[in-house]
Amino acid sequence: MTAHPDAGLKTCEILRVGGGEAGVVSDVLAVEEPLEIQVACGPAAARRRHSIAVTMRTPGHDFDLAMGFLFTESIIARAEEVTLLRYVQQPSEAAAPSNVLLAELRPDVQVSEQLLSRHFYTTSSCGICGKASIDLVNLHTCFSLLPKEPVVPAEILHQLPQALAGQQDVFSHTGGLHAAGLFDAEGSLLLLREDVGRHNAVDKLIGAALQQGQVPLSQYLLLVSGRAGFELGQKALMAGIPMLAAVGAPSSLCVELAEAYGMTLIGFLRNGRFNVYSGRQRVSA
Amino acid sequence: MTAHPDAGLKTCEILRVGGGEAGVVSDVLAVEEPLEIQVACGPAAARRRHSIAVTMRTPGHDFDLAMGFLFTESIIARAEEVTLLRYVQQPSEAAAPSNVLLAELRPDVQVSEQLLSRHFYTTSSCGICGKASIDLVNLHTCFSLLPKEPVVPAEILHQLPQALAGQQDVFSHTGGLHAAGLFDAEGSLLLLREDVGRHNAVDKLIGAALQQGQVPLSQYLLLVSGRAGFELGQKALMAGIPMLAAVGAPSSLCVELAEAYGMTLIGFLRNGRFNVYSGRQRVSA
Repeated sequence: MTAHPDAGLKTCEILRVGGGEAGVVSDVLAVEEPLEIQVACGPAAARRRHSIAVTMRTPGHDFDLAMGFLFTESIIARAEEVTLLRYVQQPSEAAAPSNVLLAELRPDVQVSEQLLSRHFYTTSSCGICGKASIDLVNLHTCFSLLPKEPVVPAEILHQLPQALAGQQDVFSHTGGLHAAGLFDAEGSLLLLREDVGRHNAVDKLIGAALQQGQVPLSQYLLLVSGRAGFELGQKALMAGIPMLAAVGAPSSLCVELAEAYGMTLIGFLRNGRFNVYSGRQRVSA
Repeated sequence: MTAHPDAGLKTCEILRVGGGEAGVVSDVLAVEEPLEIQVACGPAAARRRHSIAVTMRTPGHDFDLAMGFLFTESIIARAEEVTLLRYVQQPSEAAAPSNVLLAELRPDVQVSEQLLSRHFYTTSSCGICGKASIDLVNLHTCFSLLPKEPVVPAEILHQLPQALAGQQDVFSHTGGLHAAGLFDAEGSLLLLREDVGRHNAVDKLIGAALQQGQVPLSQYLLLVSGRAGFELGQKALMAGIPMLAAVGAPSSLCVELAEAYGMTLIGFLRNGRFNVYSGRQRVSA
């Protein structure tokens, strides 16, 4: 396996069977590597470093990923709460890829032990259920959605998957990477991020928007290339995104979440068709 | 949203746009609900209960899921180490779905604090990298693969996606649920499990096989309906599965893992084609 000009890809030799180009050929793969996200928090006299997550991600836009993760998981409420973001150099492995990122938080930022322990959904006193998961989002969401904005014509919605795929490279488009795209109501693509993990693609996108001062994204639509589960809906809500569209299917809990918060949820957006699961007022004929 | 005869599905009213059946129609959704997995371990005098994971899963085959998770994450080495598996009733919510499962471990089973804390990939003293992730699997894997078994003809491999899809229901097949299927070298489907989470589908399948005394699955092939990332490769190896095939793309780290352990890895298995990324000796013309 060898490096590729794009850090998110690697080249390897494979045996291709069937089709026109059968035989041993060179092919590209989406890179997957662990990223550990650490935070340092507390006042100078009692500063502590915590490992808060390890995610399997495609290298590239790591700072966006860390910022998006910290924000959508309620570790930080604003980009300014992170004073410094840097890779932690491992002394013994000078040439190793940079897979540990440390975020220095402002000394006054309070981070609960609960959040640091990553057991986000086990805190409900009534045990755990979908309803409790939905209620928990309420504890953390800073933004309310404008009930009737934006309004996007169906004709524009039909064009979005093509616009997203058109900006991905050929490999991504054929299924190697999940994509997340941020669109305005006229169908213009403003931001695109890709990753082997669909939640990482969304965190990268939200992290980029956060650092550009664009959050809450109250006039935009988020399109994801795969399915829409609860986690993606929760991340969209955290960023104040009123419309979430997926090329694939939504889950029941993502629909319930969208209904609870007035978010528009669109699924199976492909081939000139789509389903609206929640928030129909934002879709015009 | 209303119940559906299949516990893994819910019915809801949606607005369908485009295509033949446009308008407000009833549709089905894959159910997604959190499942908390707890273990009770230690001798009677010092027995403790730990919450080890919360996963968003499709209800159904929860015991398989818990057993598969405990096994593929190295909490247990054998099915017999779990003496009892039961839902934990929440007193205040008699009618709530059962989303907390407790596994009672045999008093002599030792579980490291490290594993209980879920930070499986942060333990390497040299920091974290793909190589360390691959090496860590070695610490836990109990089974070596037979280097040349089984051998599966390409002609049989081409038939597997259809065989898998044929056993899913229409909804699953159209993208609502990930599927994992266990096949023998003649292409017979022995086990099928589905879930909104691809890792859960694999854990359910391995958990079912474990309880049937079939692990290590040294003569079988695991087919997954989506992509093959590191996590799926690691789970397959834990169960001693020598061949992993995916309808979608593999990641770089899954290919490196397969090469390191001599596992056959096949990707893009669809429409009469496939790619062999590792272990070509198990594929015959």
